[in-house]
Amino acid sequence: MTESKDLREALERALLADIPLARAMGLRISAWDRTTLAISAPLAPNINDKGCVFGGSLAGVMTLAGWSLVHLAADDARIDCDIYVQDSTIRYLLPVWNDFTATASLDADESFSAFLETLRVRGKARVSVRVVVADDSGNPACTLHARFVALAKATIPSGVTTDAAESGITTPA
Amino acid sequence: MTESKDLREALERALLADIPLARAMGLRISAWDRTTLAISAPLAPNINDKGCVFGGSLAGVMTLAGWSLVHLAADDARIDCDIYVQDSTIRYLLPVWNDFTATASLDADESFSAFLETLRVRGKARVSVRVVVADDSGNPACTLHARFVALAKATIPSGVTTDAAESGITTPA
Repeated sequence: MTESKDLREALERALLADIPLARAMGLRISAWDRTTLAISAPLAPNINDKGCVFGGSLAGVMTLAGWSLVHLAADDARIDCDIYVQDSTIRYLLPVWNDFTATASLDADESFSAFLETLRVRGKARVSVRVVVADDSGNPACTLHARFVALAKATIPSGVTTDAAESGITTPA
Repeated sequence: MTESKDLREALERALLADIPLARAMGLRISAWDRTTLAISAPLAPNINDKGCVFGGSLAGVMTLAGWSLVHLAADDARIDCDIYVQDSTIRYLLPVWNDFTATASLDADESFSAFLETLRVRGKARVSVRVVVADDSGNPACTLHARFVALAKATIPSGVTTDAAESGITTPA
């Protein structure tokens, strides 16, 4: 089995190579233990007019944290798939005044094993994720709840389009 | 009364000066008619691994479109205030493959006059906004519904803190 650090670093390299805004936000995948995933980002490139973190940066980093959590679960199971964010709800509770970390985990009623089994059998699976950015005292400063859909590449017959619009989904995070 | 074009251009300058990610996304406030506001952005700096617009860019541009709509209403009424995003729900319906525009307007049951009157009288007011990014055929590709809170600076007594946490809010967009 590939080491989790290798998978994590490969995904971080891909994010930074493929998504200019990920580079602009200065993010890195700072931790992954197969249950939770953390993306960290510095304040400076993400600051707003008030001197705290721009809401758009929080939304971007948190969405990518959820997307990466799902992506690494599929990578770890050697399922080649595209992962799209379907919808998300964000609550901005407290301003964030420093470098920050977004920590993603599955919803309490979700499991990686059920998600991956559905993805293997049906070639498509949905999963819900929660992401939190805490303030310096550990209180939630911003929370995101998002649903992602994964479409396996290998299990889709060659004659079937993988066009996202036709599949009823959505924008790659 | 200040021309709407002057207010719009002043806010765009402030956004680009104060928010590095607004510069990175290449946005401009492309239209404002006191009822709707549009922010446009090019694909290139906002692209993702699939070649369409990154979900985090959509979230950032749409949040700023809503924030700017509320900000310009206050500017136009000469009310000096801070505006914070409180929560938002985003639905990613279709991928966006080109330069894009996010168009913001108030919720159907909201009015600028009621919002501004509450802000004048109480020094604080909330308002709900809808933002849409359409695809090339005019179909909604991404929608955002967000609540914003405005805190008037001039009407807050000097002994009262404007600390966002104490006020029960939130992150400046």
